[in-house]
Amino acid sequence: MDAEEFRRRGKEMIDYVADYLENIRERRVFPEVEPGYLRKLIPGEAPEEGESFENIFKDIERVIMPGVTHWHSPHFHAYFPTANSYPAIVADILSDAIGCIGFTWASSPACTELEVVVLDWLGKMLDLPESFLACSGGTGGGVIQGTASEATLVALLSARAREIFRYKQTNGHVDDGVIMSKFVAYCSDQAHSSVERAGLIASIRMRKLPTDADCSLRGQTLRDAINKDRAQGLIPIFVCATLGTTPSCAFDNVKELGTLCQGESIWMHIDAAYAGSAFICPEFRPLLDGVELAESFNFNPHKWLKVNFDCSTMWVKDSNLLTEAFNVDPLYLKHDNQGAMPDYRHWHIPLGRRFRSLKLWFVLRTYGQKELQNYIRKDVTLAHQFEGMVVADDRFEIVGKVVMGLVCFRLKNASNATNERLLKAINADGRIHMVPSEVRGVYFLRFAVCASRTTESDVSFAWDVIRELTESVLKDSDKK
Amino acid sequence: MDAEEFRRRGKEMIDYVADYLENIRERRVFPEVEPGYLRKLIPGEAPEEGESFENIFKDIERVIMPGVTHWHSPHFHAYFPTANSYPAIVADILSDAIGCIGFTWASSPACTELEVVVLDWLGKMLDLPESFLACSGGTGGGVIQGTASEATLVALLSARAREIFRYKQTNGHVDDGVIMSKFVAYCSDQAHSSVERAGLIASIRMRKLPTDADCSLRGQTLRDAINKDRAQGLIPIFVCATLGTTPSCAFDNVKELGTLCQGESIWMHIDAAYAGSAFICPEFRPLLDGVELAESFNFNPHKWLKVNFDCSTMWVKDSNLLTEAFNVDPLYLKHDNQGAMPDYRHWHIPLGRRFRSLKLWFVLRTYGQKELQNYIRKDVTLAHQFEGMVVADDRFEIVGKVVMGLVCFRLKNASNATNERLLKAINADGRIHMVPSEVRGVYFLRFAVCASRTTESDVSFAWDVIRELTESVLKDSDKK
Repeated sequence: MDAEEFRRRGKEMIDYVADYLENIRERRVFPEVEPGYLRKLIPGEAPEEGESFENIFKDIERVIMPGVTHWHSPHFHAYFPTANSYPAIVADILSDAIGCIGFTWASSPACTELEVVVLDWLGKMLDLPESFLACSGGTGGGVIQGTASEATLVALLSARAREIFRYKQTNGHVDDGVIMSKFVAYCSDQAHSSVERAGLIASIRMRKLPTDADCSLRGQTLRDAINKDRAQGLIPIFVCATLGTTPSCAFDNVKELGTLCQGESIWMHIDAAYAGSAFICPEFRPLLDGVELAESFNFNPHKWLKVNFDCSTMWVKDSNLLTEAFNVDPLYLKHDNQGAMPDYRHWHIPLGRRFRSLKLWFVLRTYGQKELQNYIRKDVTLAHQFEGMVVADDRFEIVGKVVMGLVCFRLKNASNATNERLLKAINADGRIHMVPSEVRGVYFLRFAVCASRTTESDVSFAWDVIRELTESVLKDSDKK
Repeated sequence: MDAEEFRRRGKEMIDYVADYLENIRERRVFPEVEPGYLRKLIPGEAPEEGESFENIFKDIERVIMPGVTHWHSPHFHAYFPTANSYPAIVADILSDAIGCIGFTWASSPACTELEVVVLDWLGKMLDLPESFLACSGGTGGGVIQGTASEATLVALLSARAREIFRYKQTNGHVDDGVIMSKFVAYCSDQAHSSVERAGLIASIRMRKLPTDADCSLRGQTLRDAINKDRAQGLIPIFVCATLGTTPSCAFDNVKELGTLCQGESIWMHIDAAYAGSAFICPEFRPLLDGVELAESFNFNPHKWLKVNFDCSTMWVKDSNLLTEAFNVDPLYLKHDNQGAMPDYRHWHIPLGRRFRSLKLWFVLRTYGQKELQNYIRKDVTLAHQFEGMVVADDRFEIVGKVVMGLVCFRLKNASNATNERLLKAINADGRIHMVPSEVRGVYFLRFAVCASRTTESDVSFAWDVIRELTESVLKDSDKK
């Protein structure tokens, strides 16, 4: 494919993409394929000779689309949203073309420097304390990680390294593994599975602490756990607090937890993967109070801030704690300006990295702060609209509180099995798509406002589908 | 930005990108900016109101391009190549628009299934043993990781989990940390820094073993290290063999190492990040002999196979060993078809993942196997052309062997300091860009054939620049 063909094919793809997204409502949101469907549709080996682009292009509709779960359909209400916007797509084309691997400042200065500045922009939009911003001139700053999972892991590994260092300073040399076997980290029993996984990877005991009636982890619970562990000779090193849990969008009490962590010299990391975007609105910002007590904070603009995956933004107060955790420094990566700007390769797990700040920059500038705030507010309003319809129907109850764009609900006075039948009936029907969740043995359905194109009438449509299927599920249940 | 504006702006970006790449030779390959240049060029905060796309677009040349290291300039000879091709860029537009997060089969079946099949395609192109391929019907298969760093880490973590399990079966319960303090892993002293880093993250002692005169790790060296460690009560669990090292593109003796690892039940992982692409050519495939003795194998099509970053392909013989290493399974990620196809979230560190197999599929089909083989051969030929020019000049010597697209060389009978002056003079001059390396205290220059547009005359041009600067450096040295 030469430049002339690229100009033609690239533009055809732009049109295809615009058509796809503008007409996405017409596609069945959840595909009907069976596992293994795709292998039957394409050859078993790569072609010897190149194929025409026409052939490849035709296979998008023949091979790919039948198996796509359309995350950007307004009928998609599963998981949490993943962002998608035109300016982000345009920026990604540029990022692909520049195609630099920004592991050090020298490997492409613009890649590092735009990230530093735009993370300051975003940090200011969230009203983060100065100590998290690079422009403060201190050791703080932001970085784009691939996912919240990686941010949690990086925070935990950094806490681990700091505590191993401290332990050796006090106790002399002991094997790292032996020291680590004394360490303990905490999260709530509502924390995302990636937090537990970070514990497995870092080989740090991760305790899931019980939450209060609102699914919030409270200070006293952490206090008790720390006391119990210290009494057994263990060393608490890390707390992952969640703002906006995945099961039900609950909020840990970051002020209480943070005050404790400060007193105990424990690293508090805040995972606000989904809800963090909402903190750009003054009315939601109080939920972030206490962030000044954290060592690190993370949320995903690639979920709810119109920046295509992957763009998980993380801020730390002391970047030295990250870079010292796993700094290896071969000659082929050294350069003359080390230290003047971050070498982001020390800030995360992979060495290579794409020029991801471009899409964040394009999005913040195209929409401006106000339009992004309004975008968040629109989704929260839609969630409350859905909540109102659930509340008005005697057969249902709301689970937890509706704070952001997620509504958790279930059939009242019905078994988990009946609720599960309803969920399965909804997904089998295929007009809308949702996933379930469970808190303390209670199974419920999660309705997330996901796509940027979702409107009031889509929410009403979803509710009509749910009511229709509820009737048939309840009728079947009666028969049994 | 509505759909109509996206159609217009997206197409403008396509033209900008084609212009950028077709005329990239005219840009200075290495930027002249000082650290901190960019902050001065843009506002300190995100705009309140959205800006016009014209404004943003203008800033690409004003703000970004002056700070870009142009990895796709034919004058870029630093590090190893990173791939860039038109069909990959077109595929990435589609991937961005679909914007699915393919963590499970159900979250977008096409995303998982295309990856399974295209990794089989690529595995067959490399003539990987059947046991690595999903189509064999066994436990083997391929996955796209973000980077080789992550592939190494995943392999090491999986080996660690397997050995902890085995240890407990024999010895009953012991704290993981205590067990891990007995574990030891190996790589050569030429292995990439990410291997050492994987050891730090996994908290596994990583020994860098000495290599032979060709910078190759040999069986006897590993044998001696294992014996010594076992005698001290340690447990060898993992070897990372490298095919095509970063310092000098050397090749470990995978057959010798693998035979040993099989006998000792040690996990051998092969990191062929750069050189792996060449194994699609029959004449280079013998370098991969012994892969049948490995548990896992990884290389980066995003380096030398025309697939834009990130696309690091990894194959394993027993995927259960990956998925059991850090399997956590919350309800909101469960689906009805678990087990029938891979849930790739268990195969790597992040939970979220982009639809990256699309670009691999587009590239393999657009070029076909033959054209990709010829592309590799072209680069190797260019490297030998450069080697010939170095050899013909009495002032220089080649370091190591030229096997792929990397030529290591230095000023003969000259100090490291003089060679370093030459490297710095080259980068300060700015017509070409290179990085240095060092093996056993000997500093040398690395000339990598990187950009897809590099031609014979670019190689001659680079050599002319190097000779010109050599004269002035040697003149300066004489004066001192």
